Amino acid sequence: MRRYDLALIGFGGVNRALAALIEERGDELAQELGFALRVVAITDLRAGSLVDLDGLDLAPLLATAPGELAFADMKGGSPDPRNEWVIRDVPADIVAEATFTNPADGEPAVSHVRWALEAGKHVCTTNKGPVALHGRKLRNLAAEHGVSFEFEGSVLSGTPVLRTAQRLLSGLRITGVEGIMNGTSNFILGRLEDGADFEAAVSEAQDLGYAEADPTADVEGHDVALKVMILANEVLGADLRSEDVFREGISGITAEDIKDAADKGLRWKLVGSATRRADGSVDARVAPIALSADHPLSGIAGPVNAVAFRTDLLGTVTVSGPGAGRIETAYALLSDIIAIHQRHANDAAASCGHALEETVHG
Amino acid sequence: MRRYDLALIGFGGVNRALAALIEERGDELAQELGFALRVVAITDLRAGSLVDLDGLDLAPLLATAPGELAFADMKGGSPDPRNEWVIRDVPADIVAEATFTNPADGEPAVSHVRWALEAGKHVCTTNKGPVALHGRKLRNLAAEHGVSFEFEGSVLSGTPVLRTAQRLLSGLRITGVEGIMNGTSNFILGRLEDGADFEAAVSEAQDLGYAEADPTADVEGHDVALKVMILANEVLGADLRSEDVFREGISGITAEDIKDAADKGLRWKLVGSATRRADGSVDARVAPIALSADHPLSGIAGPVNAVAFRTDLLGTVTVSGPGAGRIETAYALLSDIIAIHQRHANDAAASCGHALEETVHG
Repeated sequence: MRRYDLALIGFGGVNRALAALIEERGDELAQELGFALRVVAITDLRAGSLVDLDGLDLAPLLATAPGELAFADMKGGSPDPRNEWVIRDVPADIVAEATFTNPADGEPAVSHVRWALEAGKHVCTTNKGPVALHGRKLRNLAAEHGVSFEFEGSVLSGTPVLRTAQRLLSGLRITGVEGIMNGTSNFILGRLEDGADFEAAVSEAQDLGYAEADPTADVEGHDVALKVMILANEVLGADLRSEDVFREGISGITAEDIKDAADKGLRWKLVGSATRRADGSVDARVAPIALSADHPLSGIAGPVNAVAFRTDLLGTVTVSGPGAGRIETAYALLSDIIAIHQRHANDAAASCGHALEETVHG
Repeated sequence: MRRYDLALIGFGGVNRALAALIEERGDELAQELGFALRVVAITDLRAGSLVDLDGLDLAPLLATAPGELAFADMKGGSPDPRNEWVIRDVPADIVAEATFTNPADGEPAVSHVRWALEAGKHVCTTNKGPVALHGRKLRNLAAEHGVSFEFEGSVLSGTPVLRTAQRLLSGLRITGVEGIMNGTSNFILGRLEDGADFEAAVSEAQDLGYAEADPTADVEGHDVALKVMILANEVLGADLRSEDVFREGISGITAEDIKDAADKGLRWKLVGSATRRADGSVDARVAPIALSADHPLSGIAGPVNAVAFRTDLLGTVTVSGPGAGRIETAYALLSDIIAIHQRHANDAAASCGHALEETVHG
């Protein structure tokens, strides 16, 4: 059976959940999916790096609390993450990138992805930065090196949004994409509808672990803007930069706005959208919109997120599901690995075809 | 470029819309999809049959009103549909079956599908009957003959429900499926909420063309029951027969029921569901349920339909979109043809691989 050796870059919640999935369900998944997974390297900003080309024993790593993990003391370990060396030089088939992303330039994730693709390794990532800011360049780099660059988790965690557009809507003209893509702001808007004031709603979201200590990225629409860029560029074929996305957050929404909307049967939602204009260019924006009850996104509440595709032949098709979560995002990486396997299996078969021609005619 | 020759069985709204799509957008689709489509045969209960192995000229057929079409007067035409002969003996790659289905035994569609598969032809169908009542048998028959049996349009027209489950949720355990899968009953429930009485709501649905002259199949849940069987059997791997599906329609819902629900913030919906029980068996049912506002299906209104998949790692993922419509259902057939092409292309590559081995080692 085909086996893929993985290097996990970043060993926070998401890659730990992926490792747990491999540890606990690897055999069963192999049975179902037709390939096995083995982790040969892990790097982490705090824990350092750990390499074993015969496959790491994941159980003791998963049994240790994240904050306590120190690879330096282990065989094959180092206190230094040594990301570039691990990504470029440790023989792995797939690099699972789940570090963090600077919304200005997408680093350090962009470099991680680039090093891996340059080294001829497939990449799956959950980071929005590399995809939103350098998607086209990285896709081209992957193509040059004959490897895959997969990133389902960059939009709505494991909910299959990008793959629905890429695989299940072929033959349709997608004219626009519209989504509720930030659980924190959606939660806050729900609490405002319940009568909470803005500051209290933000605190509550922080207490529940939805919002960061600095909620700006969620509340002011920066997070959604990156997802809109990904949808515009990957689904509508645009080539937008950050400054091309109009962005307005929810911090300006007043109790009166909420009440006025409710009186008219409307609900405020932070909507990210990308719409093809008549001239072929793409309008991309993030803004609060008061949606009527019959809008496909109006019923999307709390941590559930949704993306609606506007199409010519099929009208609107909407996919909704979790927008975040450790395990949900780890599943995004697994779904990327499945996609890599499917493409790889086909490529292998196709190159056999070429080889046959050479054998017969050569 | 690979070209597929199609036989269209039934030339009502759906296959006419497919023919129009091929006529109007064939070149563009070929460019995008990598294969061309040509119609070599059409049969229709009223119009008869028409065969041209060099490809039928679709424009004049589409320019004629459905009721006026008579193939008998045309070259290669006959007043008799000659379904069995066309399906078995006319050389076509794919049979697009869009006739009608008897909910008791699935005929005549079941025979159409069987003849095609026995003749080694791929089949795409929009008919629930063959899939719900004989899905397993027909799938096995397709496998025996090395051809595909595709039926995305049997549930929610072209909205990619079955293919989401089959292709985009791999590696997850799907524990249940739940949907609003009948636009007519959903429309009627909406009108009841607006204060209409049941008989008036049914008449209105009939006037708008949503409901048949005999609305029983929609209103009493027979239509949804077939879709539940398809989801239970195809997604949860069950092997249910009609009598295994509990069925209750919406005709018993009173104005008082509606009011009581509204007072509690609930909305009645006709819900079809299939749920895996602890012992591995599958509970399948159709019944009106008063859903709370935070249920993923509660916001699904009017002609929009939706199916929610309950999964272990990803929670609930919901796909919503049109549940019916000529063009929407024709797109389901196109999406099936795309699936057939993808599988065929892979098979061809794989068999090259085998051939290579034989060449090298033989």
